[in-house]
Amino acid sequence: LVLLSDTCLGQLTELANALADCAGAASLPHFRALDLDTADKGGDGKGEGRFDPVTAADRAAERAMRDLLALRRPDDAVFGEEEAGKDGTSGLTWVLDPIDGTRAFISGLPVWGTLIALDDGSRGRIGLVDQPYIGERFVGVIGNARVEAWMTGPTGRHPLRTRPCAGLADATVFTTDPFIFAAAEFEAFRAVSSRARLTRFGTDCYAYALLALGFVDLVIESGLAAYDIAAHVPIIEAAGGRVTDWRGHCCRWGGRAVAAGSIEVHAAALELLAQVPD
Amino acid sequence: LVLLSDTCLGQLTELANALADCAGAASLPHFRALDLDTADKGGDGKGEGRFDPVTAADRAAERAMRDLLALRRPDDAVFGEEEAGKDGTSGLTWVLDPIDGTRAFISGLPVWGTLIALDDGSRGRIGLVDQPYIGERFVGVIGNARVEAWMTGPTGRHPLRTRPCAGLADATVFTTDPFIFAAAEFEAFRAVSSRARLTRFGTDCYAYALLALGFVDLVIESGLAAYDIAAHVPIIEAAGGRVTDWRGHCCRWGGRAVAAGSIEVHAAALELLAQVPD
Repeated sequence: LVLLSDTCLGQLTELANALADCAGAASLPHFRALDLDTADKGGDGKGEGRFDPVTAADRAAERAMRDLLALRRPDDAVFGEEEAGKDGTSGLTWVLDPIDGTRAFISGLPVWGTLIALDDGSRGRIGLVDQPYIGERFVGVIGNARVEAWMTGPTGRHPLRTRPCAGLADATVFTTDPFIFAAAEFEAFRAVSSRARLTRFGTDCYAYALLALGFVDLVIESGLAAYDIAAHVPIIEAAGGRVTDWRGHCCRWGGRAVAAGSIEVHAAALELLAQVPD
Repeated sequence: LVLLSDTCLGQLTELANALADCAGAASLPHFRALDLDTADKGGDGKGEGRFDPVTAADRAAERAMRDLLALRRPDDAVFGEEEAGKDGTSGLTWVLDPIDGTRAFISGLPVWGTLIALDDGSRGRIGLVDQPYIGERFVGVIGNARVEAWMTGPTGRHPLRTRPCAGLADATVFTTDPFIFAAAEFEAFRAVSSRARLTRFGTDCYAYALLALGFVDLVIESGLAAYDIAAHVPIIEAAGGRVTDWRGHCCRWGGRAVAAGSIEVHAAALELLAQVPD
């Protein structure tokens, strides 16, 4: 376990911002480029033979972040989507998804994002979601004395704060795709979403950012890797929400996730999701 | 039938841009506002008791456009989502959807848009889709001597051109929500999407804009009103694509729509969709 002072955490947050800048500079020239090189990774386990694209943009953005980390934090571990994990000696791990939402990226839809998390061995301390085409960045920091979450975007800087929501009947629920769930998972998801006010699809990482911003109440997903979820946990926790797996346990290493803006909605969703066998 | 010179069409395109400016000025202050006033219109016929929100932003944006039209084009007809239709004497009709994708709007997700079309009594001549938060505008003009489509956005001005796509196996398919379809419609949609390379949900008007931009091959929807589709037809036609109803007929007054970037994909989708009874 690493003891991080708030000063040190502030410097690491600056570095997380620099990593996002580098990743955006590497990925953005490929966005909506007509000659984008796209390969099929051959299935991600979510649906038989499902198209699982990776692009030159994913690889370039992760490489750019790893290059900067090698220079500035050579002793930290790195766990990213596109390259092999790198062990460290500092006790700190950077968890990177250069482009979460590659399917959106190759479709020209700007709801993809670069995800960056810093984990201290017991929990995520920094989370960052960057959408460079729109020019939006969502950041959460779990400090010792100070817990803080904010966003910057076309209309300036705003604090992140989840909204109150008394129960599922008032809730807006997001997930990426109704067809990512296994049969029993889908049944449980529908049990939640059929009780909700509004259900929306197709948002990848952007749904978690909107939850932290206070405009979405619930995000439910399954089959996640650590780099799909690690960045969201500190942001949503610092904004007042809760993120766990479907049994109510820590989900920072992936699996099934349920994120909620209010304790009441989190509990109501868990009641329906917890019954799904592993 | 109205004879419109290309000079006149150029002036009307300038007016369409001014209408979008006015609508954006009226709607954008409400986007992600914590005190947004949202009412339920009580169902849109797509799914039993489905939440059908309308906001102060929808009403203010349509009013702003109607005010400008009353001043500049008092003899034109106006057909919009939020107010009663206005008859005209010029033979020209402005078809307005102040916020297409109100569910996305109230969720803070910037894939909603303002839709503006100018219809000359036989076809759409101007189409415009505006997304003021991202700062993107897609325009198509069907002139006599000149057919043109372009977009402006964070990375400048780009021509709109649909991409070639030989068949469904290579196609990216978008629709707003798998649950908007009636049972027989959903079966036909799944027949198409199960043959496609990639299926995505949740995009409202933005999917049509991405098709015109050459990053999506097929958009399939049902239960549309004229103001949901009228603006897309001139843009997609001017960009080289095709938009019809599920039988291959004109769809500018709404119903079921299938938009494709290539003739081959349009034909392949129609073959599966045309069998659905009315």
